Amino acid sequence: MIKTDILIIGAGPTGLFTVFEAGLLKLKCHLIDALPQAGGQCSELYPKKPIYDIPGFPEVLAGDLTQNLLEQSKQFEPGFTLGERAETIEKQEDGSFIVTTNKGTKHQAPIVAIAGGLGSFEPRKPLIPNIVSFEDHGVEYFIKDPEKYRGKRVVISGGGDSALDWSIFLAEVASEVTLIHRRNEFRGALDSVEKVQELKSQGKINLITPAEVINIVGDGKVKGVVVAQSQHIEKEFVVEADHFIPLFGLSPKLGPIANWGLEIEKNAIKVNNALDYQTNIPGIYAIGDVNTYPGKLKLILCGFHEATLMCQSAYQRINPGKKYVLKYTTVSGIDGFDGSRKESPKAVVKAIN
Amino acid sequence: MIKTDILIIGAGPTGLFTVFEAGLLKLKCHLIDALPQAGGQCSELYPKKPIYDIPGFPEVLAGDLTQNLLEQSKQFEPGFTLGERAETIEKQEDGSFIVTTNKGTKHQAPIVAIAGGLGSFEPRKPLIPNIVSFEDHGVEYFIKDPEKYRGKRVVISGGGDSALDWSIFLAEVASEVTLIHRRNEFRGALDSVEKVQELKSQGKINLITPAEVINIVGDGKVKGVVVAQSQHIEKEFVVEADHFIPLFGLSPKLGPIANWGLEIEKNAIKVNNALDYQTNIPGIYAIGDVNTYPGKLKLILCGFHEATLMCQSAYQRINPGKKYVLKYTTVSGIDGFDGSRKESPKAVVKAIN
Ligand SMILES: Cc1cc2nc3c(=O)[nH]c(=O)nc-3n(C[C@H](O)[C@H](O)[C@H](O)COP(=O)(O)OP(=O)(O)OC[C@H]3O[C@@H](n4cnc5c(N)ncnc54)[C@H](O)[C@@H]3O)c2cc1C
Ligand SMILES: Cc1cc2nc3c(=O)[nH]c(=O)nc-3n(C[C@H](O)[C@H](O)[C@H](O)COP(=O)(O)OP(=O)(O)OC[C@H]3O[C@@H](n4cnc5c(N)ncnc54)[C@H](O)[C@@H]3O)c2cc1C
Repeated sequence: MIKTDILIIGAGPTGLFTVFEAGLLKLKCHLIDALPQAGGQCSELYPKKPIYDIPGFPEVLAGDLTQNLLEQSKQFEPGFTLGERAETIEKQEDGSFIVTTNKGTKHQAPIVAIAGGLGSFEPRKPLIPNIVSFEDHGVEYFIKDPEKYRGKRVVISGGGDSALDWSIFLAEVASEVTLIHRRNEFRGALDSVEKVQELKSQGKINLITPAEVINIVGDGKVKGVVVAQSQHIEKEFVVEADHFIPLFGLSPKLGPIANWGLEIEKNAIKVNNALDYQTNIPGIYAIGDVNTYPGKLKLILCGFHEATLMCQSAYQRINPGKKYVLKYTTVSGIDGFDGSRKESPKAVVKAIN
Repeated sequence: MIKTDILIIGAGPTGLFTVFEAGLLKLKCHLIDALPQAGGQCSELYPKKPIYDIPGFPEVLAGDLTQNLLEQSKQFEPGFTLGERAETIEKQEDGSFIVTTNKGTKHQAPIVAIAGGLGSFEPRKPLIPNIVSFEDHGVEYFIKDPEKYRGKRVVISGGGDSALDWSIFLAEVASEVTLIHRRNEFRGALDSVEKVQELKSQGKINLITPAEVINIVGDGKVKGVVVAQSQHIEKEFVVEADHFIPLFGLSPKLGPIANWGLEIEKNAIKVNNALDYQTNIPGIYAIGDVNTYPGKLKLILCGFHEATLMCQSAYQRINPGKKYVLKYTTVSGIDGFDGSRKESPKAVVKAIN
């Protein structure tokens, strides 16, 4: 059982900043995310694109914003359960909650902060009859640890940025990379498309287009995929492989959280925006894109504010009656849970002669 | 008469970010500030100190944050009335407001956003009987345009960062800089204190301590100041000067805004935080440190969120019935009022052969 003060569901920008604000209040956080990495939409959907409306950043790449938020919260030593979906919640007699993931990992905390964005990111799966039986036995929809593919034969299918970028990356790691796409045309950043073209010309990526994977062969684990050339369906052949990675995009689903007894409106969780972004269940808050209230805007900067007010309220629940006096970080500095200390250089009082 | 869409009172971080968010909605802004420069508390009180709780910045100097916010809003061409205090407000028949400053400058807008922080920054004035009659005739409490002092003889009094830093700066500009302080000890950043020591040793700054300016001499304009050495009060002498700049700090005063008919609580303006941060007077909003509501935190990041929601509401008031669809800056890019265009590099669709 993982125990923490604030259990955060969703490691997008809102969840990450919650770790920082909670840390200022000496509260520890643990984050659960269905994705293998932190950053939510920013890291999964548009890491290399610029955002222009983060206050104080005339321009920042979504991936860099994620890195900055990780760096900012690092000193408060958040725990992570990645690649798992929060599935069920149970209220305990002592008022705390136990949240269990689809892989059975259990987490307990007096406060749950749902920062689930548009929902848990679930892969779009290709329509291959036997694919489910190969999941985690050679079929992966996310790349969690690229080292896993070292020296292996990998088939990637898809025609967008993820398929292009992972093909490029794995060309240096895997023993063989085959990229299969339904069309000849790929859609992505110009430099990615050009790089794949170059690697293909050098023989470092095998390209099969227009084509589709229509079946998987293997006994318990992937041994290869059956490919059909799109022009002449009758032409089928097998590509031997240790891994098949279909990268057809992700779609977010509010999913299991919708059944937690929370008031839901338009696929989002209703909260008390006049006070602390708490839901109809005391102790459970919803912040960032996942919540709704009159005038709600699904913007990153709004999640930051909501997280901050929410942490104050959580502090009061955890320390009833204790008076909290807001301190400026500039004035008080920051004491990390890791023993680090950040502080402004102090003024001196010194005679001049 | 200066006309604009949103008239912002206060050019602190909240006011500056309002310009950006309003610009995204094609609304123009004009800012009034009692200080000679933008940035509010950040630029006036702690420009060289680090802030640790701006989301996405593990650390940022308050002065740099101000520069970034100016840079971010620049493309939306805000107007500025600096060094003037918003004094009165009158509602017009067409529903718009006219705001007049202490210097008589008039501004008209359908929307007023009060982002006045802790209030208008007013200088602490030394107790010198005839000082008021010399104001703007050689006595200045702020340094608006350092060039004004080129080749002039300047007396600065004070013992903190402003007195130190302006003495250092003007040592290169003025023909003569005299720094007068009640004690031998100065309080400020170590490098500032050391630099003044060095300039004093080089004869580039005259230092008179412990001492006080007790009178001003001149006819209509400053010709010099009368200095009393603190140890032996009887010892008085005149230092000839063209300018006398007492830098004894600033204290914020809600001031005239307190009489605008707004609901005030604990020196702050009550707003509807459940919707749009509007005050009890429709069309007048209060955002940032200046407002209050249940759970309010006087933090920079909160002002950013409040400004953003407020702009949406202002848009609805200005364009009644017009439906506004939120656009992501990443997806739509930004069209500046100055003709500039920022946008994310587009994806290409390209065959790989
Ligand atoms: C192309 C694009 C451009 C954008 N541009 C901008 C912009 O310019 N400015 C701006 O402010 N915003 C922009 N956005 C929106 C911005 O990305 C979101 O507002 C932001 O990501 C919301 O952050 P969040 O932390 O609330 O949620 P998310 O980033 O959505 O993160 C939520 C996380 O929770 C996880 N999760 C959800 N449910 C569960 C569960 N049951 N178990 C485990 N994990 C779960 C998800 O997997 C996800 O990783 C853009 C979005 C897109 C797609
Ligand atoms: C030493 C110190 C350290 C701090 N550290 C932090 C920190 O670490 N993190 C954090 O989030 N916050 C911190 N703060 C607080 C932060 O600076 C404020 O929250 C922030 O400046 C508020 O921004 P604002 O734009 O709402 O108001 P302000 O910055 O106060 O700006 C308001 C402006 O309005 C002007 N004004 C007011 N009334 C009038 C009028 N009638 N006419 C003309 N002009 C007027 C004022 O002159 C002023 O320039 C700190 C503050 C101080 C003093």
